[in-house]
Amino acid sequence: MSSHYGQLFRISTFGESHGGGVGVVIDGCPPRIPLTEADIQHELDRRRPGQSEVTTPRNEADQCEILSGTFEGVTLGSPISILVRNKDHRPEAYSEMAEKYRPSHADYAYDAKFGIRNWQGGGRSSARETIGRVAAAAIAGKVLDQLAPGIEVIAYVKTIQELQAEVDPNTVSAETVESNIVRTGDPAMAETMIQRIKDIRSDGNSVGGVIEAVVRGCPPGLGEPVFDRLEADLAKAMISLPATKGFEIGSGFGGTQLTGREHNDHFYMEDGRVRTKTNRSGGVQGGISNGENIIFRVAFKPTATIMSSQPTVSKEKEDTKLKGRGRHDACVLPRAVPMVEAMARLVLCDHLLRHRAFCENL
Amino acid sequence: MSSHYGQLFRISTFGESHGGGVGVVIDGCPPRIPLTEADIQHELDRRRPGQSEVTTPRNEADQCEILSGTFEGVTLGSPISILVRNKDHRPEAYSEMAEKYRPSHADYAYDAKFGIRNWQGGGRSSARETIGRVAAAAIAGKVLDQLAPGIEVIAYVKTIQELQAEVDPNTVSAETVESNIVRTGDPAMAETMIQRIKDIRSDGNSVGGVIEAVVRGCPPGLGEPVFDRLEADLAKAMISLPATKGFEIGSGFGGTQLTGREHNDHFYMEDGRVRTKTNRSGGVQGGISNGENIIFRVAFKPTATIMSSQPTVSKEKEDTKLKGRGRHDACVLPRAVPMVEAMARLVLCDHLLRHRAFCENL
Amino acid sequence: MSSHYGQLFRISTFGESHGGGVGVVIDGCPPRIPLTEADIQHELDRRRPGQSEVTTPRNEADQCEILSGTFEGVTLGSPISILVRNKDHRPEAYSEMAEKYRPSHADYAYDAKFGIRNWQGGGRSSARETIGRVAAAAIAGKVLDQLAPGIEVIAYVKTIQELQAEVDPNTVSAETVESNIVRTGDPAMAETMIQRIKDIRSDGNSVGGVIEAVVRGCPPGLGEPVFDRLEADLAKAMISLPATKGFEIGSGFGGTQLTGREHNDHFYMEDGRVRTKTNRSGGVQGGISNGENIIFRVAFKPTATIMSSQPTVSKEKEDTKLKGRGRHDACVLPRAVPMVEAMARLVLCDHLLRHRAFCENL
Amino acid sequence: MSSHYGQLFRISTFGESHGGGVGVVIDGCPPRIPLTEADIQHELDRRRPGQSEVTTPRNEADQCEILSGTFEGVTLGSPISILVRNKDHRPEAYSEMAEKYRPSHADYAYDAKFGIRNWQGGGRSSARETIGRVAAAAIAGKVLDQLAPGIEVIAYVKTIQELQAEVDPNTVSAETVESNIVRTGDPAMAETMIQRIKDIRSDGNSVGGVIEAVVRGCPPGLGEPVFDRLEADLAKAMISLPATKGFEIGSGFGGTQLTGREHNDHFYMEDGRVRTKTNRSGGVQGGISNGENIIFRVAFKPTATIMSSQPTVSKEKEDTKLKGRGRHDACVLPRAVPMVEAMARLVLCDHLLRHRAFCENL
Repeated sequence: MSSHYGQLFRISTFGESHGGGVGVVIDGCPPRIPLTEADIQHELDRRRPGQSEVTTPRNEADQCEILSGTFEGVTLGSPISILVRNKDHRPEAYSEMAEKYRPSHADYAYDAKFGIRNWQGGGRSSARETIGRVAAAAIAGKVLDQLAPGIEVIAYVKTIQELQAEVDPNTVSAETVESNIVRTGDPAMAETMIQRIKDIRSDGNSVGGVIEAVVRGCPPGLGEPVFDRLEADLAKAMISLPATKGFEIGSGFGGTQLTGREHNDHFYMEDGRVRTKTNRSGGVQGGISNGENIIFRVAFKPTATIMSSQPTVSKEKEDTKLKGRGRHDACVLPRAVPMVEAMARLVLCDHLLRHRAFCENL
Repeated sequence: MSSHYGQLFRISTFGESHGGGVGVVIDGCPPRIPLTEADIQHELDRRRPGQSEVTTPRNEADQCEILSGTFEGVTLGSPISILVRNKDHRPEAYSEMAEKYRPSHADYAYDAKFGIRNWQGGGRSSARETIGRVAAAAIAGKVLDQLAPGIEVIAYVKTIQELQAEVDPNTVSAETVESNIVRTGDPAMAETMIQRIKDIRSDGNSVGGVIEAVVRGCPPGLGEPVFDRLEADLAKAMISLPATKGFEIGSGFGGTQLTGREHNDHFYMEDGRVRTKTNRSGGVQGGISNGENIIFRVAFKPTATIMSSQPTVSKEKEDTKLKGRGRHDACVLPRAVPMVEAMARLVLCDHLLRHRAFCENL
Repeated sequence: MSSHYGQLFRISTFGESHGGGVGVVIDGCPPRIPLTEADIQHELDRRRPGQSEVTTPRNEADQCEILSGTFEGVTLGSPISILVRNKDHRPEAYSEMAEKYRPSHADYAYDAKFGIRNWQGGGRSSARETIGRVAAAAIAGKVLDQLAPGIEVIAYVKTIQELQAEVDPNTVSAETVESNIVRTGDPAMAETMIQRIKDIRSDGNSVGGVIEAVVRGCPPGLGEPVFDRLEADLAKAMISLPATKGFEIGSGFGGTQLTGREHNDHFYMEDGRVRTKTNRSGGVQGGISNGENIIFRVAFKPTATIMSSQPTVSKEKEDTKLKGRGRHDACVLPRAVPMVEAMARLVLCDHLLRHRAFCENL
Repeated sequence: MSSHYGQLFRISTFGESHGGGVGVVIDGCPPRIPLTEADIQHELDRRRPGQSEVTTPRNEADQCEILSGTFEGVTLGSPISILVRNKDHRPEAYSEMAEKYRPSHADYAYDAKFGIRNWQGGGRSSARETIGRVAAAAIAGKVLDQLAPGIEVIAYVKTIQELQAEVDPNTVSAETVESNIVRTGDPAMAETMIQRIKDIRSDGNSVGGVIEAVVRGCPPGLGEPVFDRLEADLAKAMISLPATKGFEIGSGFGGTQLTGREHNDHFYMEDGRVRTKTNRSGGVQGGISNGENIIFRVAFKPTATIMSSQPTVSKEKEDTKLKGRGRHDACVLPRAVPMVEAMARLVLCDHLLRHRAFCENL
């Protein structure tokens, strides 16, 4: 079970859906960064359940407590531990899950690996686990603000099923994304997407989609080839989120249709800076940020829990059937937007510290 | 510069396109695994330049030497160091690259990061770097043979531009893939793809495409949620390969169009084994292999080097033009097939050792 | 700030002397290990302040709470988070320390490194930090019990200043050590040592000494040359404890007086097992356990806090004087005994898991 | 088998005593550091066998080759691979060792762990392995020169058996140490020590001793509590060297005899710098360098190989006898001096890079 992430800005998340709580320890935060619980709470509120009519009605306030690592409002350089207690337990909603494997969930795989699982609410495989990531990333964001001022990370819903938002990643604002509960960057499409999610939920069904994200103002030079390319670390970070099935950067899969002559990004000078005319590279070349906007997309599958009876097998290895119960998102994307931003911030913060170690001020 | 990969089966690659040589040190190979240079050479021959009429004519024999870590034909448990000398140097072909940044290459980004680069043949950003990976993965393959007998890793060209191969990942054989120089799993499409690459090369242009890979016979239980999910580590491994722009597993981006009811993989029992009726999960659930075939796809952009004059900027930050020279693949995919297999083997071997540490024989 | 330890059995400790609490996250504990809070509490009680008349009167119950990672009395394989709240705060006792550096303490060095420090009770440099280690090691002990049954780790006070205990590491029992509050393995010496500590405390002074530890029943084969030799990892683990100044294994510094002919441990067969006649190697050869008892010693300096006025400098870099206040151990050794055992268990557990990954059942 | 060291300045050593060669890959060296093979060769010459009449007559030129990572005389920021070929093979001298375990050597332990060993010259457990360390540390030294100019690392023989050198660590020069072949810092004692080694060798016996080292000019702030304290990492680094049995810093084991009042280092101001009147802390407080000289000592046991017949057991687990053959140092200390310096430089360089990442220029 590997619940740590990062080489220098290192986080260790913990916690199951039901139990004492969830949280994170961050080991590697620079000292003297201003930090309060409110900074963290703001991001947790964006990912908490029950926040709007397109998310699960499970009602968790998800109030965080900083247990260590700060003093008089700033970081100490020592580990920052953050705890969020679990509150709205309803383990009884899951009792059938103790005996049967939910299709397209982690239940069987966990049993196959560990020989045991906490079946209450998915245990460690619950998306509740991402609270620790989002909390840690709120701190990473504070570090980025200080060490790379001007850097911006914005994610938004690009598609829900076949519904596609029109968004210019170079100009979309966080305010626009937050202005609608589905968190798309295209307000004109928001209502249609919201209605789709409501309809599909009414049917006991679920939908997926694609989240696009942009990093603006990233300094050139972040990323460490050959294995820790910036886009490779972004890929891992995103695919480590629950329910993800794909990642692409810049031209992505679509770019494979072009020829090199069509695809290449030509360099030119602008205001003393090296720029590219197009940005099919997605802001990263050879594994290193080139100063253009970093643009990537993440595919999220439809939520596995649906309110229909489905064939499955039991823990005792017999064929059976199971119908979803409990409180679930019919579409994870609105709440996954802050998770995508969180993982991007963790990757960037880690690489920024690495860059400081090796390359800056030599 | 992060050139190490793996938690337990750890590799450290080294080397530039031009210089003393390229290679790898593997620290973490179990002892008493049969291993000869021929085992490694076989895989290196599949990725070497000059192997066929659809690859670069650069002619490197890429003969490997095992410098340490074996004794009387088996591994010692000590680090295995493998060296491949560089031979067919033509640095003069690159002299213009010393002064100008090649579009969509790593040149500018390396300079921005390191303040220096070896401009001969791309230096460390050359695909020649992957020799170390392929050599290490040949050894990973031997470890897998011993510890997880029956596991098979097969990659093949799925598309070249819009040309799409029809391949059943559940049955395609390595022999079929090797039977054609483009390394597609669909022999009926091979000639068309080969002709496309030849045509595009004649035009001084380049093309990309998609490689699909399947892991068959993988035991359930590999992968370590939450960050080191098997698919997250595969994503990172693949996107760490040069020229990649996307990764998807199972249903991937296409799966975002389906509803949960359509998408879910139902469990059933077969011969005492838990199976799924469909495999949109791609062999991984909750970050852990579930015993089904692991199926994923990787997008490769068209080769950046083309034989046309393109606008760019110079090291002195002036607008200029540059025309590609040197010997290059007009399409990287045929040689990328063994690289994709290599990275998959490295991921699997590392996770297999991790699984042994934590979960087996408790 | 590096507060994580271990390659596979990984722990991340957190917490300052004064603040929300201290604790640890363990990521890498095998699943299905029986574990309750009582298992952990037992070891915490051995290191807690106020436990006897030779320790600091600071009174902390140090009650632990397991926040995650267990289910129905066994481990899940997911991260185990343990929290101990701070209770007996008296920050006012430290107000002068906000302005002045305590001699031979970490105060100045922390300021030099971080530009900030939590001056309440030493903050992160307080020995209170070791709670997380001891809690994690209680779990490591449970893992060892299961995977290497028969392994025993026993530490005891060997010397207080020049007072030397006579102890046979091959036979000393945990009960003997716990039978006296100074935790020496030589009950005949206990009263003298206790009196020495009381006398020195009455004088406002402090003393140090040497703790010896033995690991009995360790299987041969643990340790990973060349850098992660078992004794190297033990050395690091011990010297990472507060107030330590030296480590030696087997013959140690004294062995440098012998010739090779006197020093060598001759092998012989006993009951089908390879044994050594003497054990100057200390149970480790070439960095790997050889099946003999592992015996090492750790030097602890006299407690830095004394109740005398001493010259020092202020935060504003002016010469000044400071007299110790607060509640402190006049001798850290009795409470350091469980810390030494804890670090040894963490090292052994980590290496046992590593050995399982690479070498067992091949 | 763990042959990598360092968090940021990461080295991976490889190679056995007999085989293709030994060497190292350094991944994490900053770019644009001047570096030539001569820089490395100078340090290798100090550790090579056959350099003087008090070292083994095995004659290895130990010429190094830089295979990668430099360009036009400076580092690229990419991995630096260094190879030293093995030349003076005499495996026949070791044929008996194939069947019998050398007392106080690693032979049995390696077999117990790996189930195999390269018995030629000790294989991986040979001190020849330290070539990679010394080569890497030569580069670490260049990095230190650039990033922490004025830092000096000097080791010297402090004792041979009971023969004790009088050396002031605050003033001893590298020239003084190199002026005598035993590498003591006390020229007046050199001849006595040399004669002792010659005498003991004539007798087919061996001796050990203590090496002391000093780091002068180390900036305050290096070291990362709580686990990666500077002295803990030094302890591990030193005890990872072959033949070591103990480590102490500052007052060390002797300091345990003092009271706190005698032991404490009082702070005072000198030329605007915080200094300590005494230096029993050994230049490190709370795990962090405090700007005073870092002074530590390492115990080396007498060489295990002696020219006498000793009882031992065979690979087939039968009692037998074995007499040392081959070419060996009767005392490892003269050649261990550059190894101790090497490990210290690796620790310092790694911590300097870490400090840059987290704490500098915030």
